[in-house]
Amino acid sequence: MENNKFCKESFVVKTSTVLPSDTNNHGTLFGGKLMAYIDDVAAISARRHARSHVVTASTDSVDFLHPIFEGNSVCLESFVTYTGRTSMEVFVKVIAEDMIKGVRNVCALSFLTMVAVDENNRPVPVPDIVPQSEVEKMLFESAKSRSEMRKKRKAEN
Amino acid sequence: MENNKFCKESFVVKTSTVLPSDTNNHGTLFGGKLMAYIDDVAAISARRHARSHVVTASTDSVDFLHPIFEGNSVCLESFVTYTGRTSMEVFVKVIAEDMIKGVRNVCALSFLTMVAVDENNRPVPVPDIVPQSEVEKMLFESAKSRSEMRKKRKAEN
Amino acid sequence: MENNKFCKESFVVKTSTVLPSDTNNHGTLFGGKLMAYIDDVAAISARRHARSHVVTASTDSVDFLHPIFEGNSVCLESFVTYTGRTSMEVFVKVIAEDMIKGVRNVCALSFLTMVAVDENNRPVPVPDIVPQSEVEKMLFESAKSRSEMRKKRKAEN
Amino acid sequence: MENNKFCKESFVVKTSTVLPSDTNNHGTLFGGKLMAYIDDVAAISARRHARSHVVTASTDSVDFLHPIFEGNSVCLESFVTYTGRTSMEVFVKVIAEDMIKGVRNVCALSFLTMVAVDENNRPVPVPDIVPQSEVEKMLFESAKSRSEMRKKRKAEN
Amino acid sequence: MENNKFCKESFVVKTSTVLPSDTNNHGTLFGGKLMAYIDDVAAISARRHARSHVVTASTDSVDFLHPIFEGNSVCLESFVTYTGRTSMEVFVKVIAEDMIKGVRNVCALSFLTMVAVDENNRPVPVPDIVPQSEVEKMLFESAKSRSEMRKKRKAEN
Amino acid sequence: MENNKFCKESFVVKTSTVLPSDTNNHGTLFGGKLMAYIDDVAAISARRHARSHVVTASTDSVDFLHPIFEGNSVCLESFVTYTGRTSMEVFVKVIAEDMIKGVRNVCALSFLTMVAVDENNRPVPVPDIVPQSEVEKMLFESAKSRSEMRKKRKAEN
Ligand SMILES: CC(C)(COP(=O)(O)OP(=O)(O)OC[C@H]1O[C@@H](n2cnc3c(N)ncnc32)[C@H](O)[C@@H]1OP(=O)(O)O)[C@@H](O)C(=O)NCCC(=O)NCCS
Ligand SMILES: CC(C)(COP(=O)(O)OP(=O)(O)OC[C@H]1O[C@@H](n2cnc3c(N)ncnc32)[C@H](O)[C@@H]1OP(=O)(O)O)[C@@H](O)C(=O)NCCC(=O)NCCS
Ligand SMILES: CC(C)(COP(=O)(O)OP(=O)(O)OC[C@H]1O[C@@H](n2cnc3c(N)ncnc32)[C@H](O)[C@@H]1OP(=O)(O)O)[C@@H](O)C(=O)NCCC(=O)NCCS
Ligand SMILES: CC(C)(COP(=O)(O)OP(=O)(O)OC[C@H]1O[C@@H](n2cnc3c(N)ncnc32)[C@H](O)[C@@H]1OP(=O)(O)O)[C@@H](O)C(=O)NCCC(=O)NCCS
Repeated sequence: MENNKFCKESFVVKTSTVLPSDTNNHGTLFGGKLMAYIDDVAAISARRHARSHVVTASTDSVDFLHPIFEGNSVCLESFVTYTGRTSMEVFVKVIAEDMIKGVRNVCALSFLTMVAVDENNRPVPVPDIVPQSEVEKMLFESAKSRSEMRKKRKAEN
Repeated sequence: MENNKFCKESFVVKTSTVLPSDTNNHGTLFGGKLMAYIDDVAAISARRHARSHVVTASTDSVDFLHPIFEGNSVCLESFVTYTGRTSMEVFVKVIAEDMIKGVRNVCALSFLTMVAVDENNRPVPVPDIVPQSEVEKMLFESAKSRSEMRKKRKAEN
Repeated sequence: MENNKFCKESFVVKTSTVLPSDTNNHGTLFGGKLMAYIDDVAAISARRHARSHVVTASTDSVDFLHPIFEGNSVCLESFVTYTGRTSMEVFVKVIAEDMIKGVRNVCALSFLTMVAVDENNRPVPVPDIVPQSEVEKMLFESAKSRSEMRKKRKAEN
Repeated sequence: MENNKFCKESFVVKTSTVLPSDTNNHGTLFGGKLMAYIDDVAAISARRHARSHVVTASTDSVDFLHPIFEGNSVCLESFVTYTGRTSMEVFVKVIAEDMIKGVRNVCALSFLTMVAVDENNRPVPVPDIVPQSEVEKMLFESAKSRSEMRKKRKAEN
Repeated sequence: MENNKFCKESFVVKTSTVLPSDTNNHGTLFGGKLMAYIDDVAAISARRHARSHVVTASTDSVDFLHPIFEGNSVCLESFVTYTGRTSMEVFVKVIAEDMIKGVRNVCALSFLTMVAVDENNRPVPVPDIVPQSEVEKMLFESAKSRSEMRKKRKAEN
Repeated sequence: MENNKFCKESFVVKTSTVLPSDTNNHGTLFGGKLMAYIDDVAAISARRHARSHVVTASTDSVDFLHPIFEGNSVCLESFVTYTGRTSMEVFVKVIAEDMIKGVRNVCALSFLTMVAVDENNRPVPVPDIVPQSEVEKMLFESAKSRSEMRKKRKAEN
């Protein structure tokens, strides 16, 4: 189909300094702020792929592996990994960087499902995704079982 | 053990108006803002149970069932459902309310794992939880398999 | 009248962590932030009672009895205590909690007057309030003199 | 006493545009945001007078006379009107301006009591205030009865 | 021309406390927050002069002369210094004040160009400015060469 | 010298959705918010180059070429272009994207000067920059005259 799209077309990067106003009472970034960043980049990736409005249908589990300290930078990278008829799976990687030492750590990985919608919040079809690199292909393949799991999960709720 | 605690001791409620500044370009609450609220109430529940500092170790998947509109109120309820040695599972329920019609909708359900930590971000033990009501007992029982799933998931990453 | 309402129908709770971004240069919650929370819960209580849009007509005096420290949680409780034709008196109680020690303190008490309005900001009638508990009845009784005082105050301005 | 101060030495002005993020769901500035501005200017006036840290001890009643619309500017003026041993009364006037028509309206008047404190939040003495203009003298004279009223009010709580 | 205006008619003052949430990881106001304040006062000055909507066309260079510390107040003063057909040059002066010592420092000076626009963001004519004081006249005279420089700069880009 | 660095080592990208809370009363991003983003990415680029704390010494003029609408994404790219002994020139490019049409526009270009500082805000030396690509070389060459201009400008103030 002519309007298929590559993963790299929806690739989004967002780098920010962790400011005092982003931290909890331990001087570390609090989970809720990071979740807000994750949602923002995932939505931009999905809009780039679908060229339509989108809403967050679900976020899969997120493991926070390391605390992110005030004064670190935090860098999020995201792209669309899989598409259904109206839904897109978006992968987000979060990397913290100690600005003085230059040490970088992957701090969280997350999958979100974004749904393309029209002005009345009704789902609309999206282009197919075409994985190219090894990583993209791996994420594309494993997406099918994640998608099954989500349907099962939603049915159970 | 004497310092066991009941679920209701960690029960937390947070109600807020959805303001223009909380919405995306569709006039609906954006997912990231809601995730930040979810993290805030879960952390307060966990601190009430552990009476210590806490960090978010993980959030399980969240399904966003209905859009929440500007002018709605959004009410979050949370309590500790299960405890390990240093970790606590917290359940969060999100209810949106149309302030004019009075209609209320459950919009999202979420489980988070919070870990009690000392001043150096090292895990410290927490009191055991004692479920009392039917719902509390049901969530307590099902928590064991969710806990297993998280360990498996983290090992796989 | 059939659409009379009980105080408990407009009961609202809002619990939040005091984050570094909420504090002044002493590490304590600043008065303005607390006033914003007070206004938010009072408006939700009033909307629940009136099931209409509302605006803040006035806030009575607020005494800040104790400082609220970073890392404390702050919990606001509010409900409608009295009604005029289009106005509602809302009572707000503010309780701070030291999350580590578990000590709770009433930090402020406040009465606000909210007015129900239509789309053009014109006042519209509200249901009557029906106090039930001892505290509700006491606040209802004393509301008349507070209402007189406000009228006098406004006339003087 | 040599370190007496004039009212005009603590005169503070703060002008801001009412942005979409400052408004409620009616497109008007919400009360809580205005209260935060009022608290900010009053604290600056008090610090200028006392040259020490200050906390808000109380706000007297505030009547919101007119809605303030998105796109208006809002201008606050404040100065110290009266002093006790460690406390200062600060008067705040709020003026909204329609930027296109140029019409200005007094929208709220407020008195706050700020207390000078040391590093441990303990009250410390402040210089005496010296009113000069007619308005300053009038506010100074009427302050005594407002001060009595506050003491009575606090005792009753 | 009858609707000429004086510089003092667009004079705007904005004073704010530097809160923890306004600072970077050095405890000093970060540049971006100050730029946001500068833009706000300049826009209000321009709207007062033009009595129309305005957009920021450019900011000239800004030198940050001294760090501004948490707990300082920061005071901005602005007024229109020069007018073209649809554009206005606005001058902004930033003064920091150590609230305990009472020491005041000019921390930044800035010129912005604001353009009056209609509902469709199209430039519309503005009244002429009439400088009165010595400083106003000096800034008015030197504005011509700054205006030339901006045109040259924009052409080069 | 062994610790010279390439421009690409300080390359930073930051993409964000323009939310209602970022806009002025025309539904377009306001200049101050964009200036805050520009400052954030420039500081991260400078910290990556210097591996030390940094402060903003000055921002050169910024021309805002096109309005950026609510719902657009805004993408900033920055890198170090030139180094003195303790100062770094950072170049920032701002690109807005209409998410539905996919049209991208360069909306602003900016140069900032960041200075590496120690814990006491005293300037410290930075590595030399090594331009590689054509654009990097061009910006490096033209940096000398911009640096002269800034010195002249500051002397004049
Ligand atoms: C997401 C939403 C539009 C789906 O609506 P719906 O009536 O379930 O629509 P459908 O059943 O046609 O589903 C549309 C697609 O979404 C997918 N989907 C729906 N719920 C999902 C979930 N929880 N997780 C993953 N995918 C989901 C479906 O599988 C379907 O995918 P496909 O078209 O690729 O096969 C709707 O649930 C919604 O508006 N939710 C709120 C979104 C929101 O406001 N988020 C922020 C909350 S703060
Ligand atoms: C959470 C954290 C303290 C765990 O540290 P750790 O070295 O893995 O410690 P342990 O292996 O002793 O685990 C401690 C407990 O956490 C649990 N845990 C660890 N990771 C988990 C995860 N991803 N999901 C659920 N539980 C987890 C363990 O099962 C253990 O539970 P138990 O004591 O009840 O048996 C650490 O990973 C961390 O600091 N993460 C960052 C937290 C953070 O900053 N969050 C906000 C990010 S923006
Ligand atoms: C204000 C505060 C320091 C007063 O402490 P205190 O133990 O009552 O001290 P004192 O009795 O010595 O009173 C000190 C002065 O404050 C005045 N004061 C105390 N409470 C007051 C009130 N509610 N309204 C007006 N003045 C008050 C007293 O009259 C006295 O004035 P004077 O010295 O001019 O005669 C204390 O109540 C406090 O810390 N409150 C919290 C402040 C705060 O954090 N505000 C923001 C809340 S979010
Ligand atoms: C400012 C803007 C309206 C000018 O539009 P334009 O098509 O260049 O219009 P014109 O050529 O007719 O210029 C109008 C006036 O603006 C002036 N102007 C335009 N660009 C300028 C610049 N970069 N610096 C200074 N003045 C400028 C012109 O000199 C002219 O002035 P005059 O009428 O007094 O002689 C347009 O560039 C724009 O909308 N920019 C974005 C503004 C914005 O959204 N700012 C916030 C960004 S986050």
